[in-house]
Parts: sequence; structure tokens; C-alpha cells
Amino acid sequence: MSNKNIDVECREVGLRDGIQIVKTFVPTDEKIRWIREEVAAGMPNMQVCSFVPPKLLPQFSDAPDVALAALEQDGLWVSALTPNLRGAQTAQAIGVHEIDFMNSVSETHSQSNGRRSTAEALAEFKRVVELRDSLPEGKRFKLAGGFATSFGCSFEGHVPHNAVLQSVENFVKAGVDEVVIADTVGYGNPREVKELFTKVIENFGDDVMVGAHFHDTRGLGLANVYAALEAGCRRFDASLAGLGGCPFAPNATGNIVMEDLVFLLEGAGLNTGIDVEKLLPIREIIATNLPDEPLHGTYAKAGAPKGFPWNSSTASIQD
Amino acid sequence: MSNKNIDVECREVGLRDGIQIVKTFVPTDEKIRWIREEVAAGMPNMQVCSFVPPKLLPQFSDAPDVALAALEQDGLWVSALTPNLRGAQTAQAIGVHEIDFMNSVSETHSQSNGRRSTAEALAEFKRVVELRDSLPEGKRFKLAGGFATSFGCSFEGHVPHNAVLQSVENFVKAGVDEVVIADTVGYGNPREVKELFTKVIENFGDDVMVGAHFHDTRGLGLANVYAALEAGCRRFDASLAGLGGCPFAPNATGNIVMEDLVFLLEGAGLNTGIDVEKLLPIREIIATNLPDEPLHGTYAKAGAPKGFPWNSSTASIQD
Repeated sequence: MSNKNIDVECREVGLRDGIQIVKTFVPTDEKIRWIREEVAAGMPNMQVCSFVPPKLLPQFSDAPDVALAALEQDGLWVSALTPNLRGAQTAQAIGVHEIDFMNSVSETHSQSNGRRSTAEALAEFKRVVELRDSLPEGKRFKLAGGFATSFGCSFEGHVPHNAVLQSVENFVKAGVDEVVIADTVGYGNPREVKELFTKVIENFGDDVMVGAHFHDTRGLGLANVYAALEAGCRRFDASLAGLGGCPFAPNATGNIVMEDLVFLLEGAGLNTGIDVEKLLPIREIIATNLPDEPLHGTYAKAGAPKGFPWNSSTASIQD
Repeated sequence: MSNKNIDVECREVGLRDGIQIVKTFVPTDEKIRWIREEVAAGMPNMQVCSFVPPKLLPQFSDAPDVALAALEQDGLWVSALTPNLRGAQTAQAIGVHEIDFMNSVSETHSQSNGRRSTAEALAEFKRVVELRDSLPEGKRFKLAGGFATSFGCSFEGHVPHNAVLQSVENFVKAGVDEVVIADTVGYGNPREVKELFTKVIENFGDDVMVGAHFHDTRGLGLANVYAALEAGCRRFDASLAGLGGCPFAPNATGNIVMEDLVFLLEGAGLNTGIDVEKLLPIREIIATNLPDEPLHGTYAKAGAPKGFPWNSSTASIQD
């Protein structure tokens, strides 16, 4: 977690998970404007790009420039995603604070999405651990593992909890600093989310930080946030205006909406450090640069409740 | 609750709360078709109309015909809403199973919405209790109290829990059979929902059934369902395709979406008696008769997860 005085950390992933699914190139300056304006709204953490071969995902061909600009923002925790050592080397050379190593719990999804087995992914991850550990202690990046398809996979259907726990254990033993449990295709149900997050936090919460990455593909994204919150999770990914989608379900909604997430958390009396009202005008950057993408989010349509945030005499809920 | 063998009871309120906000008249035959098709999908309970002066809400001018047709559906629990004795008399004469008496916790909303004080509403409710109690025991309707603005009000802002608990106590003392805690304008937060439902169920759950009526105005509708579920609530209102809106926020979403609600509950291993796939084609009735109304719902866009519902060997969650 970044070092701000907050109860729960939100991480903006629109510049990575949102942009990943669209074909239009968002100009580098506009990406940087997005970062600057979210930082001004109080966003503590952004996953700003993916370090992948530009041939595969040209949306991220400007990843180094975007990451460098992000690192200039005072107080912003900058993370970047990569599936392999090569991307990690680039990210490390630039100096990002956190490298998120993608892998899938589902064997079929691992093959389809990453063209490698889960065992090969783990072996590659260990090479990134070696890279981290080769650096002087003060210069090391934080290393996170992202566990795609933790609640199910469009190929295999339901993914058993034991498979997730085994994957996480493998990464913890290999030296991961943080794990992000991801519901890649929106299969998660709040009851199951609470159960799995409770198990992950009980088993590994002393060693690593546990984050959540939910998609709203089937409407349960924010219910799943609340369930994970109840289980003790204190870090959540989301994207502005819910930018993103589901590669397996055209027209479906994607990432949970940052504005609605912040409203949920602040309404629960948890300090996120973010001013939700300052997030709203930033939606214009998406509308301007990606005019074909729908702007999701209900808070943006309805506005703040009268008198919100409730003061301490009306809001009786404490963390 | 209706007498079906289910774990959680969903109630369709689109024909009342959904239609209430639209100006277009949905033909009586189409309303009846909607009822028939939802019953065929397994819907156990529908609030089919509002008994109010047709001059005020012409959408409900055919309420008696709609209610009579609903009562012909085998196994359907038929409820109707009314704000006063006169509507209750009409509903009783027709023979609906349950009369839902509307009132507001917020004094300002009570005046604005019902043109009466909360004390006057309670006095009118007592007249409906007298009507019920004047009937032979086997012929009595169930009498529910609907508590609008239980989480906040567009005039007064946050509504304190003690005000809700006092209103519920007044109605319980007066003889209500069931209470429905309603988040009329989507102010509720899941943490607060869990806290308030826990208090209501602890204080009154032995005497009356406690239901929940959530709106998705600010995106937290299904998170609030899960929170109420955790507090022990087992009856939820929702509307097909989320038909409805918020009179205080144009363009805002309204009732939670029935299809998504059923997906949440069935995914949690709770039997609703409803086949969510059979609900989907019924959305066409709304699209045809109310072409200007948006069809909400993410499940309808994304479809079922592969292999859903999970069988008992994969789904480890029990009620």
C-alpha cells in the first residue's frame, strides 16, 4: 500500500485493464492528463500501463513514457503489469514502484491468454523474483502476483478454491510481496468472495498484502467488494467510468466503476483519500478520447445524496 | 412469504414501482402477460399494482383487472400497494393476499409524497388494521408496512436508524404482519444496511417478517442485498430489467434488477424457485410496451457463467 493515511486503498486500473480491450490509441498526453487529474482528486495508486510487446498490444507502445510521467506525480504509487521477465526488466529500469506479474489459476486460461502452462508462469515469476532480489535493498520494486480467473474461467467454468490457494501458496513461497485475487470474467458471488478472501487472508495475510480485482460483468462487482471488505481486504482495483470490458462477452460491462467504489467505501465511513466529486469531470477524458466506449457508473448519473458525506453524529458505522 | 419451498423470496415490483414512474399506459393484457410469464419462470410473489386514485396515477386505472388476473395464477402470492384505507378496501374486496401500506420515515417526504404527517399515516394504517381484523380469521389479508426513506431522503438527507426503529415499532404495536425497509432514493450503504437490518430483525423479527426494497440509484443495490442477506433478511423486492427510476434524479437507475438479484442469490446456493434464463425473454414485454425505458441488467448482457449453476461438489457455500 502507498503510505497515505487512508483506511482502504483504491487503485485506478483504467489505463491498463480499461485500455487493454479497446483498439483506439489514446494519445500519450491524454493518458498523462488522466493520471495528473486523478492524482489531484486524491487517487493514491494507479496501474498505469502494461509492459508487453507493442506488436501484441499497440495501446501500450508508449508505456515507458506514461510510467515516467506517472513517477513524477507527488505521492502516487505507480504500478505496471507485465507477464514476463522482459517486461519486468523494462519496468524496473524505469523505476516503477510495483510490478504486477499476471498469471492464471485456470490451466486453460493460462494457455489461451498467456500461451504457457501455470508451471511455466511460476518459473517465469521466479526469474522476476531473482531480478528483484539482485537489487540493493532500498532499490527493490514491490512484486505483486495477479491471479486471474480466481472465481471461474470461460473455458473451465468454476475454479475450486483449493486451486487458488495452491497458486497463491506457490507465489508466496517464491517471494511475492502482494497478491491480487482477480475475478477476470465476473463469475464471483459475494458469499464465495467472502469465503475465499477469508481463507487467503487467514493463510497468507501475515506474509503478503491481499488485494481484490473485480469485474462487474454480471452485476455483482460492488457486492463482491463489500464481501471482500468484510473478509478484511483493504485494497481494491477499479476503473474510471468502468472502462474496460470482457473479452469473452461482447457488450458486457468490465471493471467495477471507481466512482461507485469510492462512494461505497466513503459511505461505509472508510477514508480512501479520494474526492469522488473531483473524479466525475475526469470522465470527460474517456468520452473525448474513446467516444465509442460507454461511460458506466450510477453515482455519476445520480449525484451525491443530500448532505453526503454524513457527519459522525449521523453515520454510526466505524471500521 | 408464499408457501413455496424456497430459501429466499424474490418479489417482482415492476408492475407497481416500475410502472409508477412512466407516463405511458401499459395495456392491461400486456401486464397480465407479464404476470403469467414470470409465474411460469417461477416467480413466487408479485406486487401487481397500486390502489390509488386513477386521476393521480392513471397507470393504475386497471388495477382491479390486473389484480384479479394475478389471483388466477396458481401459486402466486399477490400483493398490492396502497397509501390509505380506501385503496385497502378495494384491494380487500378483490381478494389480494397482501396489502402493502406505504408510509415514510422522513417527515418531509411523508408530507411531500403523501400530503400527510407520519402521525396521520400511522392513524390511517390503524384503520386498515381494523379492516383486516373485522374479517373472519381465514379471510384476512396479510398487512405489510412499507417504510420509505429508511436510509435517507432527498429533502432531509440521512435518516437516523432510531427514527426507522421507532416507525417500525409503531407499526408492529399497531398490528402489522410484515415490514419492508425501503431505500427509496438509493442512499443506503452496505455497512449501514447490515447494521439497520440486524437491529430491525433482532428487535422485531420474532413478530413480523422483514423484507428489503433497494434501489440501485447509486450502484449499491446488490451490495445492499448481500448485506441484508447477511443480517438475516430473506425477502427482496426487485423489478425485471430494473424498470423504474428515481423521481428525484432524472436518468438515474431505479429498482434493483430482478435477473441480477436471482443470479446473486442462486449463486450463493440459495433456492429462489426462479429460473433466471426464463426471465430473460420476458424483458421483451417491457421493450415492446415501454420503448423509451432503458433495459438495465448486466446478467442479461453477459449470460450465464459456463457450467452455472455450479454443482454441489464445486460450490462449497451453504446457507
